[in-house]
Amino acid sequence: MDTSPPVLIQAMRCEPVGRTPVWFMRQAGRSLPEYRALRGGGSILEAVADPELAAELTLQPVRRYGVDAAILFSDIVVPLVAIGVGIEVQPGRGPVLDQRFSSDDDVGRLRPLEPESDLPAMLDTIRIVLHETDVPLIGFAGAPFTLASYLVEGGPSRTFALTKRLMHAEPEAWHRLLGAIAQISLASLRAQILAGASAVQLFDSWVGALSRAEYEEFALPASRTILEGLADLAAPRIHFGVGTGELLAPMAAAGADVLGVDWRVPLDVAAARAAGSAPGKLALQGNLDPAICLAPTDVVLEATDSVLGAARQLPGHVFNLGHGVLPETDPGVLKAIVEHVHERTEQQ
Amino acid sequence: MDTSPPVLIQAMRCEPVGRTPVWFMRQAGRSLPEYRALRGGGSILEAVADPELAAELTLQPVRRYGVDAAILFSDIVVPLVAIGVGIEVQPGRGPVLDQRFSSDDDVGRLRPLEPESDLPAMLDTIRIVLHETDVPLIGFAGAPFTLASYLVEGGPSRTFALTKRLMHAEPEAWHRLLGAIAQISLASLRAQILAGASAVQLFDSWVGALSRAEYEEFALPASRTILEGLADLAAPRIHFGVGTGELLAPMAAAGADVLGVDWRVPLDVAAARAAGSAPGKLALQGNLDPAICLAPTDVVLEATDSVLGAARQLPGHVFNLGHGVLPETDPGVLKAIVEHVHERTEQQ
Repeated sequence: MDTSPPVLIQAMRCEPVGRTPVWFMRQAGRSLPEYRALRGGGSILEAVADPELAAELTLQPVRRYGVDAAILFSDIVVPLVAIGVGIEVQPGRGPVLDQRFSSDDDVGRLRPLEPESDLPAMLDTIRIVLHETDVPLIGFAGAPFTLASYLVEGGPSRTFALTKRLMHAEPEAWHRLLGAIAQISLASLRAQILAGASAVQLFDSWVGALSRAEYEEFALPASRTILEGLADLAAPRIHFGVGTGELLAPMAAAGADVLGVDWRVPLDVAAARAAGSAPGKLALQGNLDPAICLAPTDVVLEATDSVLGAARQLPGHVFNLGHGVLPETDPGVLKAIVEHVHERTEQQ
Repeated sequence: MDTSPPVLIQAMRCEPVGRTPVWFMRQAGRSLPEYRALRGGGSILEAVADPELAAELTLQPVRRYGVDAAILFSDIVVPLVAIGVGIEVQPGRGPVLDQRFSSDDDVGRLRPLEPESDLPAMLDTIRIVLHETDVPLIGFAGAPFTLASYLVEGGPSRTFALTKRLMHAEPEAWHRLLGAIAQISLASLRAQILAGASAVQLFDSWVGALSRAEYEEFALPASRTILEGLADLAAPRIHFGVGTGELLAPMAAAGADVLGVDWRVPLDVAAARAAGSAPGKLALQGNLDPAICLAPTDVVLEATDSVLGAARQLPGHVFNLGHGVLPETDPGVLKAIVEHVHERTEQQ
């Protein structure tokens, strides 16, 4: 009986691997016909509340693509909704609040999360998935900056004007808000790992809007609280954001085992920028442009080879896209990428 | 009589300056009450078609802020509209096409621009502005990638999925499209300079969505056509995009005199990345975060000092924001920035 850990975990720990593991952010999603058939037009929050359905949506891409990880079907706002924040996730738009956070008093709307009673469907989903597959499951949560930006803006933003105004004009209120969110995300991630998730990803999707100085002062401390708060558990921690080319060193310093990189920075350049910042060894995850996946397959596989080439000297590499799968993507292309990465990196 | 060129032009040419010049992208805009009073709720394309009105909107921020440049009140889609492409500029959304470019045949919808007959209002606006002020006027045009993205997507995009699909799947059609746009933008810029603009800015606002390899293959050649096509004229050329931290070297290589940098990359880091790529001396423009301008004035001026500090060793620096003024900005803050930059950089 083979007792070695799955290749995903080996790569994340910078251990020797038999081949490079692959998964795709948003691999469970509208690009899959079986997903659209099962989900229909309902709200994602309703789907997430149904453990049998959420588990099936989690498993669909594992079967279809042969990826090396399942990623929990959920949403970063689920823990906030669970503690009573009024948020609707609008298709094509994203999370929208019934009442945005506009003053220090609003921090009081965030009570501590008690995962077993607040997130029973999420934890049941994890248990069902574990029963159905041996492929490791990745759990996730939103990072404090990104979640705070939704709360403060009241929805998605291009400029993050209200968010930046709050952080600069009322830094104490800002830090209180981020501290409260950090405890919620930390509690959710710990519960996911204890329920069986093999690894977790902290999504700071929009933090690339900050300068490095802003990141270090206003985002890093709360993210570090989460990542360090998971250090006693065995599950590797991935830390990811989009447009974070200037933030790779401080993001590595926040304490993750794996740094996710978008498609703008080649992985060898990313490794050089992060070098020396991480407390331990650092694996990288990424970073094929999701938009390239709409091109003809030969172009996609050539771009895949570029990513593998840039990753050749890394101590650990998890192949992924540089952001989530686009809905227009042909599932056949994603399957071809998985097979290609496996073939190209297979050790003799 | 002082016959030396304006400080804006001196800085752009990397010549010694009496003080650092300042202007703001989108300084004519909704942040000014006198702008809102004059513009009302009409379409920007209507306002641009009225030279007296467009000239007045161009001049308002010069009077209010004491900036070192006027920037022509116009829109990057104006030359496309002038040759018959059906585009509406929707407030709060941006340019939307009546019919997006979806096949190679659509390139035929772009006929050559004849500025004197196609852009009479724009050229009249320039003549009126020159009559009213001695402050140098900056003209502008859209870069081929950014304009092509609107044509191909049919409007603003977050992912540029259709644009990237076209460039990768049909590279010949892509290059034909960009070549046609390059000739239009080049003709517009040459006409603006001949009408009296002292400098021009090529806006490649969304090119930061590309990887460096994509930029070099699919965007740089057409931008170079424009920038080199202006080399025989005396007006300095600014080249700007958002989120272009990984593209600074190839953007510098495209032939501009001044490289605009957004707020994510400190100017000294930007200079190091671009070093050696520009054909001649390279000045930098930027790069205060427009969202910081919503913070209390002391925070804004501290951030302004950071920008000036990072710019200290540059051969030439034009102070600006890292992107356009946000509509929520207090005009008093912008005025304070101008005065602060002038005071701090005044040569004894």
